[in-house]
Amino acid sequence: MSKTFSGNFFEDFRVGQTIRHATPRTITTGDVALYNGLFGARFAVQSSDAFARSIGYPRAPIDDLLVFHIVFGKTVPDISLNAVANLGYANCRFLAPVYPGDTISAVSDVIGLRENSNRKTGIVFVRTTGSKDDGTRVLEYVRWVMVHKRSADAAAPAEHIPRLPTSLDVNLLGDACPPLDAKAYDNVLAGSPYRFDDYEIGEKIDHIDGVTVEEAEHQIATRLYQNTARIHFNQFNEGQGRFGRRLVYGGHVISLARALSFNGLANAFQIAAINGGRHVAPLFAGNTVFAWSEILAKTHVPGREDVGALRVRTVATKDKPCADFPLKVGQDDDPAVILDLDYWVLIPR
Amino acid sequence: MSKTFSGNFFEDFRVGQTIRHATPRTITTGDVALYNGLFGARFAVQSSDAFARSIGYPRAPIDDLLVFHIVFGKTVPDISLNAVANLGYANCRFLAPVYPGDTISAVSDVIGLRENSNRKTGIVFVRTTGSKDDGTRVLEYVRWVMVHKRSADAAAPAEHIPRLPTSLDVNLLGDACPPLDAKAYDNVLAGSPYRFDDYEIGEKIDHIDGVTVEEAEHQIATRLYQNTARIHFNQFNEGQGRFGRRLVYGGHVISLARALSFNGLANAFQIAAINGGRHVAPLFAGNTVFAWSEILAKTHVPGREDVGALRVRTVATKDKPCADFPLKVGQDDDPAVILDLDYWVLIPR
Amino acid sequence: MSKTFSGNFFEDFRVGQTIRHATPRTITTGDVALYNGLFGARFAVQSSDAFARSIGYPRAPIDDLLVFHIVFGKTVPDISLNAVANLGYANCRFLAPVYPGDTISAVSDVIGLRENSNRKTGIVFVRTTGSKDDGTRVLEYVRWVMVHKRSADAAAPAEHIPRLPTSLDVNLLGDACPPLDAKAYDNVLAGSPYRFDDYEIGEKIDHIDGVTVEEAEHQIATRLYQNTARIHFNQFNEGQGRFGRRLVYGGHVISLARALSFNGLANAFQIAAINGGRHVAPLFAGNTVFAWSEILAKTHVPGREDVGALRVRTVATKDKPCADFPLKVGQDDDPAVILDLDYWVLIPR
Repeated sequence: MSKTFSGNFFEDFRVGQTIRHATPRTITTGDVALYNGLFGARFAVQSSDAFARSIGYPRAPIDDLLVFHIVFGKTVPDISLNAVANLGYANCRFLAPVYPGDTISAVSDVIGLRENSNRKTGIVFVRTTGSKDDGTRVLEYVRWVMVHKRSADAAAPAEHIPRLPTSLDVNLLGDACPPLDAKAYDNVLAGSPYRFDDYEIGEKIDHIDGVTVEEAEHQIATRLYQNTARIHFNQFNEGQGRFGRRLVYGGHVISLARALSFNGLANAFQIAAINGGRHVAPLFAGNTVFAWSEILAKTHVPGREDVGALRVRTVATKDKPCADFPLKVGQDDDPAVILDLDYWVLIPR
Repeated sequence: MSKTFSGNFFEDFRVGQTIRHATPRTITTGDVALYNGLFGARFAVQSSDAFARSIGYPRAPIDDLLVFHIVFGKTVPDISLNAVANLGYANCRFLAPVYPGDTISAVSDVIGLRENSNRKTGIVFVRTTGSKDDGTRVLEYVRWVMVHKRSADAAAPAEHIPRLPTSLDVNLLGDACPPLDAKAYDNVLAGSPYRFDDYEIGEKIDHIDGVTVEEAEHQIATRLYQNTARIHFNQFNEGQGRFGRRLVYGGHVISLARALSFNGLANAFQIAAINGGRHVAPLFAGNTVFAWSEILAKTHVPGREDVGALRVRTVATKDKPCADFPLKVGQDDDPAVILDLDYWVLIPR
Repeated sequence: MSKTFSGNFFEDFRVGQTIRHATPRTITTGDVALYNGLFGARFAVQSSDAFARSIGYPRAPIDDLLVFHIVFGKTVPDISLNAVANLGYANCRFLAPVYPGDTISAVSDVIGLRENSNRKTGIVFVRTTGSKDDGTRVLEYVRWVMVHKRSADAAAPAEHIPRLPTSLDVNLLGDACPPLDAKAYDNVLAGSPYRFDDYEIGEKIDHIDGVTVEEAEHQIATRLYQNTARIHFNQFNEGQGRFGRRLVYGGHVISLARALSFNGLANAFQIAAINGGRHVAPLFAGNTVFAWSEILAKTHVPGREDVGALRVRTVATKDKPCADFPLKVGQDDDPAVILDLDYWVLIPR
């Protein structure tokens, strides 16, 4: 019997199944440095222990998206090694701050299954939870992914489509943020005078800058997360495949867009939740990524005077500046759009 | 009103203005590792805690140029986002050692302004200071940069051209170097038998090796410093621009030349000051960088028996080995020269 | 006299000579992060402090191959700067675990010399030892390398060819592994149900995945080890040379193959020894590396109930999947093979 694991196929999943994923990971300041080198994040809270301490953190926390990518990466060998496409995320919440030295592992529950009519593929819905070694849950999210069947003839598991909220309960947005001293938060060091009250619903922000992606960069990033999805690394195979080249990990686009969003959202220091996201089109090395954001909603976080939450839609494009705020909703819309992400950020009041 | 910051233009500056820059940064061993991977530095003091302790440091200090780049990077959004060209550095002194865990921030004083005769641009002179969280000043330098005006019609600020020294007071060269035990300094582990007395004024050293720069490398390095200058990252825009491609950050050349200079200057373990430097020509990915150095002067550091100082001119070229010590002073000189740097290094006596 | 060191030539070596190499190096979690980003290692013991502690380590140890590359890198300026080719390794043993914060340095003894009949080159055999600052030996290995003579007319040193074992004494395999609690070792977190008893001699494992190498990646990796071999970095020179391009460091292939081997050998968490290895053909950026392994032998480690040892042959190829287990022994065999490595791994019983 082969020792090599070729991943699960659609017919291998069952609703209710729990999968503990391999390779726990201790996150270090080394991971932070490499993440900074790859994305150039500039949010003061994550960049400076001194700044973080001045407002109430014990030290600079790990960037939320680095935690997300590391948890996500662990799920790939079990969930999406035989994926056709990653279809979406929903209901993603950051539950506790993560600091250098914390060890993170991941568990997924299969919460839905639906075979496609061609019988060759099916959609797998999983809820994944990332936890620290002491049991503290740091992240949970739902994703759904289209997975190959090993055989079209195989019996499909019973269909079950989970109900997913389109936005999150605002009572739950502050869990990963300790109580802060918003007065001690230094706008100048943080890079922007704009706080919660300065943003208006419907306001659109062009983040202006663009960043060109290199093969080495997305490969190094994706390996840093121990994400083994083959399509990102293997030019020999992909050269003969659908796109003729390696595909950039979708999470890479999210991190690039988040780093670009600093210019306009510098005080939105923490992602509290991701309502949903779509990778509208693929990104390849050589493309230049731009982004713009819209403020979809604002809310006070119940019981908190220190931070409020902005619901932000960030759209990323390739090889197209975003001065005219391009969108792709229907098929006729702008083909340059690659990401459409709906999420909540915390920002000092 | 736009939340996005598009940087200052020439007419936005005033002599006497003080600018506190955003995003304090805690430097970690992660930053050191990535810097090592990008430049291959081999100076024993910065590479080994044990070596550093053996001569009197509490642990290995952060490479001087990594500190310089991080401080410089902070100034870019405020000073040079609308720059035409970075014209020069002067009067740069390293004032205190920096260790992993230190948080660095930066402040700039505008010390000079001069509008150019075309009225479209002007030269901004700033003195930038990098400090630790506890107020310890670790670095100061002057740079001057040609910056676009928002409008040629705008009134120019009053002209003031600062006087800048061409070399630094030798009494000030040792500030970033604690008292060392030069007898405990192990030449073999450090990689060279040559100390202060072994170098002669006028001596020229070909550093021999060459290193080819990749787009991913200079982008990762420049992002590690949180330097957001657009010309380094955005192929979509630069492809339509002056050079048709991304420009490598000038500081990348300085770090490459410094790493190459190990072969011939292995015991010159610390840069004490930079008298001045010129980026004579641009560097692009795909070019191979070579370097040579000349010993311009030598001096004892007043009150110190442990280290002396060499004044070194290091010249870097692209795609041209340096066995014949190429220079570019006038327009007719060698077009391969890209950097001409005049600085003081400390070396054990 | 030139301050620049151009490396030793064949006639500079003497049997019995001991060479202390330059630039001791403190290994940090930063180095680990960058190594992970470059190779995507997923072995749980090295990835997670919590996992490592659960089985008896004080914390996650440094990946064996990262230690190997750092020790090897130190020897390059003295041993192989003027090498024609690195011919082989033998008798490599890992002697003690290495942890973040340990400072490593290296010493080589010249144990053999043989001039080639053309008188232009000769083979140098060295035994290299890596040690911690406190004297603990962490690694030793023999390598032999073909080195240019400065002059064909130079007298050759007396010929001496050392006897080298083809495999290592199994009593010595466990030195770098503390006593472990194999019951506490969690197969699910580690990523595989297969332990010592599950592998059979003669079993072949296709590791399936392929990874494409970029210039920036192998340059960053090789510089991380402070390995200065010119052929890896200088396109200006190599463009005019034998291959027309930069050659990837052979150790890069070993680390890629080791990371790929996780799929099939996930519990083989530590390399105990390398019996021998050959770089059968060169690797260049743009190639995709695949690998397969064969279990050559199995042994209990005397006195230990926690771990056993598997003798593994791992073969790596370029641009050729390994489903048919390609080999290159004679000249007519598969030209895609680039590495043939024979080593012992420890695996829980």
